[in-house]
Amino acid sequence: SFSMPKIAVVQAGSRLYDTPATLSLLENYTQDAAKNGADLVLFPEAFVGGYPKGLDFGVVLGLRSDEGRSEYARYFNGAITAEGEESKRMAKIAQENNIWIVTGVVEKEGSTLYCSVFFYSSLGKLEAVHRKLLPTALERVVWGQGDGSTMPVIDSPVGKIGTAICWENYMPLYRVTLYSKGVEVYLAPTVDSRDEWLPTMQTIALEGRCFVVSSCQFLRARDFPDDHALRSKHTDDEVLIRGGSCAVNPLGKVLLTPDFTKEGMFYVDLDLSIIPKARFDLDPVGHYSRPDVFQLRVNEDKKSTVVFEK
Amino acid sequence: SFSMPKIAVVQAGSRLYDTPATLSLLENYTQDAAKNGADLVLFPEAFVGGYPKGLDFGVVLGLRSDEGRSEYARYFNGAITAEGEESKRMAKIAQENNIWIVTGVVEKEGSTLYCSVFFYSSLGKLEAVHRKLLPTALERVVWGQGDGSTMPVIDSPVGKIGTAICWENYMPLYRVTLYSKGVEVYLAPTVDSRDEWLPTMQTIALEGRCFVVSSCQFLRARDFPDDHALRSKHTDDEVLIRGGSCAVNPLGKVLLTPDFTKEGMFYVDLDLSIIPKARFDLDPVGHYSRPDVFQLRVNEDKKSTVVFEK
Amino acid sequence: SFSMPKIAVVQAGSRLYDTPATLSLLENYTQDAAKNGADLVLFPEAFVGGYPKGLDFGVVLGLRSDEGRSEYARYFNGAITAEGEESKRMAKIAQENNIWIVTGVVEKEGSTLYCSVFFYSSLGKLEAVHRKLLPTALERVVWGQGDGSTMPVIDSPVGKIGTAICWENYMPLYRVTLYSKGVEVYLAPTVDSRDEWLPTMQTIALEGRCFVVSSCQFLRARDFPDDHALRSKHTDDEVLIRGGSCAVNPLGKVLLTPDFTKEGMFYVDLDLSIIPKARFDLDPVGHYSRPDVFQLRVNEDKKSTVVFEK
Amino acid sequence: SFSMPKIAVVQAGSRLYDTPATLSLLENYTQDAAKNGADLVLFPEAFVGGYPKGLDFGVVLGLRSDEGRSEYARYFNGAITAEGEESKRMAKIAQENNIWIVTGVVEKEGSTLYCSVFFYSSLGKLEAVHRKLLPTALERVVWGQGDGSTMPVIDSPVGKIGTAICWENYMPLYRVTLYSKGVEVYLAPTVDSRDEWLPTMQTIALEGRCFVVSSCQFLRARDFPDDHALRSKHTDDEVLIRGGSCAVNPLGKVLLTPDFTKEGMFYVDLDLSIIPKARFDLDPVGHYSRPDVFQLRVNEDKKSTVVFEK
Amino acid sequence: SFSMPKIAVVQAGSRLYDTPATLSLLENYTQDAAKNGADLVLFPEAFVGGYPKGLDFGVVLGLRSDEGRSEYARYFNGAITAEGEESKRMAKIAQENNIWIVTGVVEKEGSTLYCSVFFYSSLGKLEAVHRKLLPTALERVVWGQGDGSTMPVIDSPVGKIGTAICWENYMPLYRVTLYSKGVEVYLAPTVDSRDEWLPTMQTIALEGRCFVVSSCQFLRARDFPDDHALRSKHTDDEVLIRGGSCAVNPLGKVLLTPDFTKEGMFYVDLDLSIIPKARFDLDPVGHYSRPDVFQLRVNEDKKSTVVFEK
Amino acid sequence: SFSMPKIAVVQAGSRLYDTPATLSLLENYTQDAAKNGADLVLFPEAFVGGYPKGLDFGVVLGLRSDEGRSEYARYFNGAITAEGEESKRMAKIAQENNIWIVTGVVEKEGSTLYCSVFFYSSLGKLEAVHRKLLPTALERVVWGQGDGSTMPVIDSPVGKIGTAICWENYMPLYRVTLYSKGVEVYLAPTVDSRDEWLPTMQTIALEGRCFVVSSCQFLRARDFPDDHALRSKHTDDEVLIRGGSCAVNPLGKVLLTPDFTKEGMFYVDLDLSIIPKARFDLDPVGHYSRPDVFQLRVNEDKKSTVVFEK
Repeated sequence: SFSMPKIAVVQAGSRLYDTPATLSLLENYTQDAAKNGADLVLFPEAFVGGYPKGLDFGVVLGLRSDEGRSEYARYFNGAITAEGEESKRMAKIAQENNIWIVTGVVEKEGSTLYCSVFFYSSLGKLEAVHRKLLPTALERVVWGQGDGSTMPVIDSPVGKIGTAICWENYMPLYRVTLYSKGVEVYLAPTVDSRDEWLPTMQTIALEGRCFVVSSCQFLRARDFPDDHALRSKHTDDEVLIRGGSCAVNPLGKVLLTPDFTKEGMFYVDLDLSIIPKARFDLDPVGHYSRPDVFQLRVNEDKKSTVVFEK
Repeated sequence: SFSMPKIAVVQAGSRLYDTPATLSLLENYTQDAAKNGADLVLFPEAFVGGYPKGLDFGVVLGLRSDEGRSEYARYFNGAITAEGEESKRMAKIAQENNIWIVTGVVEKEGSTLYCSVFFYSSLGKLEAVHRKLLPTALERVVWGQGDGSTMPVIDSPVGKIGTAICWENYMPLYRVTLYSKGVEVYLAPTVDSRDEWLPTMQTIALEGRCFVVSSCQFLRARDFPDDHALRSKHTDDEVLIRGGSCAVNPLGKVLLTPDFTKEGMFYVDLDLSIIPKARFDLDPVGHYSRPDVFQLRVNEDKKSTVVFEK
Repeated sequence: SFSMPKIAVVQAGSRLYDTPATLSLLENYTQDAAKNGADLVLFPEAFVGGYPKGLDFGVVLGLRSDEGRSEYARYFNGAITAEGEESKRMAKIAQENNIWIVTGVVEKEGSTLYCSVFFYSSLGKLEAVHRKLLPTALERVVWGQGDGSTMPVIDSPVGKIGTAICWENYMPLYRVTLYSKGVEVYLAPTVDSRDEWLPTMQTIALEGRCFVVSSCQFLRARDFPDDHALRSKHTDDEVLIRGGSCAVNPLGKVLLTPDFTKEGMFYVDLDLSIIPKARFDLDPVGHYSRPDVFQLRVNEDKKSTVVFEK
Repeated sequence: SFSMPKIAVVQAGSRLYDTPATLSLLENYTQDAAKNGADLVLFPEAFVGGYPKGLDFGVVLGLRSDEGRSEYARYFNGAITAEGEESKRMAKIAQENNIWIVTGVVEKEGSTLYCSVFFYSSLGKLEAVHRKLLPTALERVVWGQGDGSTMPVIDSPVGKIGTAICWENYMPLYRVTLYSKGVEVYLAPTVDSRDEWLPTMQTIALEGRCFVVSSCQFLRARDFPDDHALRSKHTDDEVLIRGGSCAVNPLGKVLLTPDFTKEGMFYVDLDLSIIPKARFDLDPVGHYSRPDVFQLRVNEDKKSTVVFEK
Repeated sequence: SFSMPKIAVVQAGSRLYDTPATLSLLENYTQDAAKNGADLVLFPEAFVGGYPKGLDFGVVLGLRSDEGRSEYARYFNGAITAEGEESKRMAKIAQENNIWIVTGVVEKEGSTLYCSVFFYSSLGKLEAVHRKLLPTALERVVWGQGDGSTMPVIDSPVGKIGTAICWENYMPLYRVTLYSKGVEVYLAPTVDSRDEWLPTMQTIALEGRCFVVSSCQFLRARDFPDDHALRSKHTDDEVLIRGGSCAVNPLGKVLLTPDFTKEGMFYVDLDLSIIPKARFDLDPVGHYSRPDVFQLRVNEDKKSTVVFEK
Repeated sequence: SFSMPKIAVVQAGSRLYDTPATLSLLENYTQDAAKNGADLVLFPEAFVGGYPKGLDFGVVLGLRSDEGRSEYARYFNGAITAEGEESKRMAKIAQENNIWIVTGVVEKEGSTLYCSVFFYSSLGKLEAVHRKLLPTALERVVWGQGDGSTMPVIDSPVGKIGTAICWENYMPLYRVTLYSKGVEVYLAPTVDSRDEWLPTMQTIALEGRCFVVSSCQFLRARDFPDDHALRSKHTDDEVLIRGGSCAVNPLGKVLLTPDFTKEGMFYVDLDLSIIPKARFDLDPVGHYSRPDVFQLRVNEDKKSTVVFEK
């Protein structure tokens, strides 16, 4: 009684500072994925809005620069909202191609940016949003922190899906939260292209007894605008993020091996019937847990600085 | 002012790996029990979902096998949930026959199985669930542990009922918990068919000053599917669990003597008026206890690895 | 590396109101037991001091009689103290015969009587005392309640021994306390000669995974003094307590079957090597317990109405 | 500023085994008391539920009889609960007659009986319950022991009231507990009709510097049902409990002298202004105590064999 | 095995301010008692040293007078010490007459007086001392408070004896302390000659299940020196303390009825065999206590204002 | 200011059922490790006591066999206690060689076995014990569950050390507990020799920013006794557990690559100065956590079925 769904994994970079172009790219990949029978297409972290790798936004300890502020303003302008036109366009692309789209986006709310993942169903609806809980290092200068209210695990044609972005995958308590919500297909959009990424994905699959599918950007210097200061430091073909998208089954077997050489789209078939077999000897929130010793309290409140009481 | 209720005690085996067939069997017994005036029909441990006695699920120390995982997946598929269709069917059978059904089931929640007892009232409602607290020996490999939140004692037409499954009957602190909740008719679904079972039931009746009614499976090799590997090891009529259902009154007198020869259904009439007489000289949680010396703390929390706070 | 010790189980009645005669009887049995190679001889409940079965001590609801008070005074006079001459005599008997003696006694402290068990080692020392925690029915009129300070489990040549007297055996929380202290040979002196006693002993052996050895009085009317009022109600040979001493191994197998026909002494050999095997699948205070759900608090204080602090 | 309240003291027996009839009797006395201006009406020990004086419930040492168990079951059936219909009826009688009712009852909780006192206010509410801490002699066979959680001293129109039942009056540490809670009017329902009762009441008044009001049953053989076995042993008019209700002021002066000849109701007026005068030279928990030498520790925990923690 | 000892109870007044004369009186009574076969002779409170009833020692609130100071100095001079000549004389009287003497004395230590009881054995030894713990009313102006180090219960030819002086008998925690130490013959020297004294003594006997023997002064105005100011207020024969010595058995029966008319000496025979009979249904520190609810802590330290540490 | 300590990693199997021989093996390896300058020698899971891989202890669903019980008894006999002779011998070996020993042991307490790790310091002291929290699959039949009281992280010459045994490494909440206690060198004794083990170790190092050192058994069929039933199923040289010991630094770099071909001992040097560098961008219990969203509650109570309060 188990189905055999297919996921398309996109390994590509944004068109930096050009969100319409990025969305066209997203549409192209989505159309191809749909043609090839995928039920869901996964894009990397910050795909919409971009991950301008290598910038410092003019910050040193104790100082910011005018140039850095301008850089940020430009970056801010390329970000999107859940309700905006760009989001509606993506919803429509999903509907037109009868496929789910899960993509990294740079989201803005008020004056703060978030590194988010948007989940669009094939009904053309934004089903869920996750905001990265902990930006890493300099990311903390451009992105805010998500809160406990955006940690969805939802039903989809490929099973119950949830997501952890880049180094959120090194947050064991967040992972346990996803396990506890029943994640079957754990989506990991990232820009981390180290060799150690695959072992990490394997371990999460083994620990959570779920499929893990990771999509990483493949970013070249030429994805920056021609006039961008960074261009002068690199040749056009220089690779800034080298990919490494991968997939692993619930017993730790690698289904999609990283390819660090090119942009592209890969397909993974998921035999969901393996899940109960894999949880026979390890169910991280069931028989293989010790709630009498360890109990994780998760606060899912929407955290707002000001609360108005009527 | 005491009534004289009747319990039907089913001594039968599941149709292994065929839950619909087992439910039909359950319906047949229930109809007969109702026709014969029973107020409640009791089925053995794991009756729905089955107790595939003699299997090892491919586990030896340090190893699991693919065959064992597949066996487990097959077993997992036959398990039911409290809210699922199978449970609704049983609730309807109870309602249609105007009788209570108390039955052992293999319950699944998430990816973990539990050895449970479901209590259906004649109103067609699942009134209560108990999950076995301590699986024995190899059971620990296929079943998780229940927690303190599913230890019901509830009113029924046959008096206050509670349950202890198989070797839970050797957990004195759990028994005291049931006494403390006022159990009058202690139901003991089991697959233990040793000679020592009857003395154990007598002693619990004497200690708790309650009726004890035990229903044991009568399982033959042919209750496995024809294609099951175990079939080749046995003749069809070989008995794997030989029954031994029994009932005892609160002064330790045997009301239903074990019959180890056949599948069947037996009836027990309960003269509840004997309970206060029996507790005249022994009330295990009242005048015959020493709370100044011994005090049992019972934690009834629902133990969850993750607790969401909103 | 396990030894094979032997216990002698005495099934005899006291010489009522004649403690010196009872001690002589105890000495005779002890000598025989020692000659036959026993390591420990077990006497029944209240053997020293007596269990004048059938008396009512002149109490009805709301009244006591002078005759009842005198009967009680006579009974009080036959009771002994831990430090008194009778106790020293028993210690000496144990030493002279190089055997342990465990015997029920009626103990007095101040003006209250207790139904106790005294443990004498072959070194001629009173090693431990247990006082019955809960007298049953009319016993409550002649005996006080022990407290948590006299619940010993001690090393002996037959393994770790502890005791529960008569219906204390129906106190599950006391039994768990003995298991927790590591009892290996559970001694159950009694005056209960019902048919249900053997099943109770079997169940305790199964639950505690220990040997259970029970010694019951065999009391005839002629054990009362000739001049006692009760003598006129009975023929001399009328049996007031019919025995039923028994022994069971940790898997519930009966080692000594009750004989309800005569006074006598029986022998039981204990193969202690069976204990770890029996606890393989059930260790009531180890792997087969759920301390996260059930935790028993035991107060071992010596409870004294007045505490002197100097 | 002291008021002069009036207490009605009932000297009557229960209609044994006929709780509705006893409640009607209670209602009649209450109506009369209210008409005569009493603020509180006091009934004897075990008035509701009865004190079947002279019964032995078939217990002798080592034996219970079927007849005794049936007698107990009959007695059990006549007992009441704090929340039951009988209690509601008494609350309503108090409210309708605008009077406080303090009465002895045989209370049941679970399968154990207690000898209790229920306090109903004129608001029609059960304000407090006290359970006898130490049943005497054969009472120990039919009643359990109360614990430290039911030792109320509460405000009432006749001053601060508390109670000690029958021989609880010989528990000096309980009395000191009541003094310590500020008892002004010490209510002593009883079935003790010895000559020594009045001196005891005087001494408590002197020691506690409080009013003591004692209500004793006046029970005749005909208060048993016609078919009761005890009836054949007595003439109808034979007096089983002869009364002796009395009252004493805080200086030991007798306000109501015992009348051992008849059923009836007596009135006592309380001049509360005498209390501080009496405590001028003796305040048992104030200036006339030596807490540096004697300190009484009182444990008011509700002692429960099982404690549920959720 | 119980003996039948005899106590002589002296009802006489001191020769006030003339200790040698009082000691002669004491010797006379002792000789008579011994001749009449008494084992112990009991004198009233403050017999040696005197109870100058009716004096105010010149104290009003906020003021003392010179006359009062002088009165106190005179009183102080008549007091004795445990080691002094007067005490040695009494020890010798006891030895010479082969009798125990228990007498009230006014004891001095340093500059403080205590109302004490001295126990002399027939061996001519001061065996024990008790100092009154709580002087009453104006006594607090002339006597200090004893501490927990002088609360003896000791063996004697009349059984275990202890003492409570005058209104110490209204200190329930002190009485319980004496019960706990095993008092069998409770000696109550007093100067309280109210009617309520006998009921108090009866109640203590009933509560403690012990013999109570009380000796009260019979003091006339002429017992003051001729020159004493008080003499002018009274006729010589006016009775200032009227006696009322009495004795009660452990079931509350009066053995010696008060005689309020004269000085004299009375005899009481004690049938100690009644004690266990009486404690059959009430042992205040054994089976009739609730140490789980009430626990009395007694501090027996010798309380010294300055403690020297070596 | 960081030192460069050395760890010796033993890859060897026990001499099954021969604990003295295993201890000699342990001593040999320890001597070699010390000679080669190691500060700490790490042995695999269950090294002392053994991991009899491939056994089923005679358990199938619903049945245990006599042979299985005997096998268990044999296994039980080879287990050790923290205070026993074997433990003292290991402590002495550590002291004599001036080295720390951390080793897997099969520990017994009462009648239950635990899979533990014992930490011996070079002072010859057993410094800490960890008991496996969750046995896997068939292990649940032979080992009990540890509780929260044995989760040490302690100082040692190689830094702060803690341990997780075998699949405990897949318990994220336990790992977070160790991180929270400050583990620097995370020791992972195991019998898991799958290919996926190394990625798991890498991921833990990356997540916890600590060194991870894992020691796996290398077990051959001939490590079973000659007479063991399992011997007939294998050739002597057949490998049952193939090793795979490894070590990883806090940035995920492999320091010791698994060798699956032979028994042996390997050395790892730890440059502890890398730890703060590695935690610059990821501190799992510091700046890289979200306690406002995720809070882990850890219960470190010693869980005991019975708690004695004195």
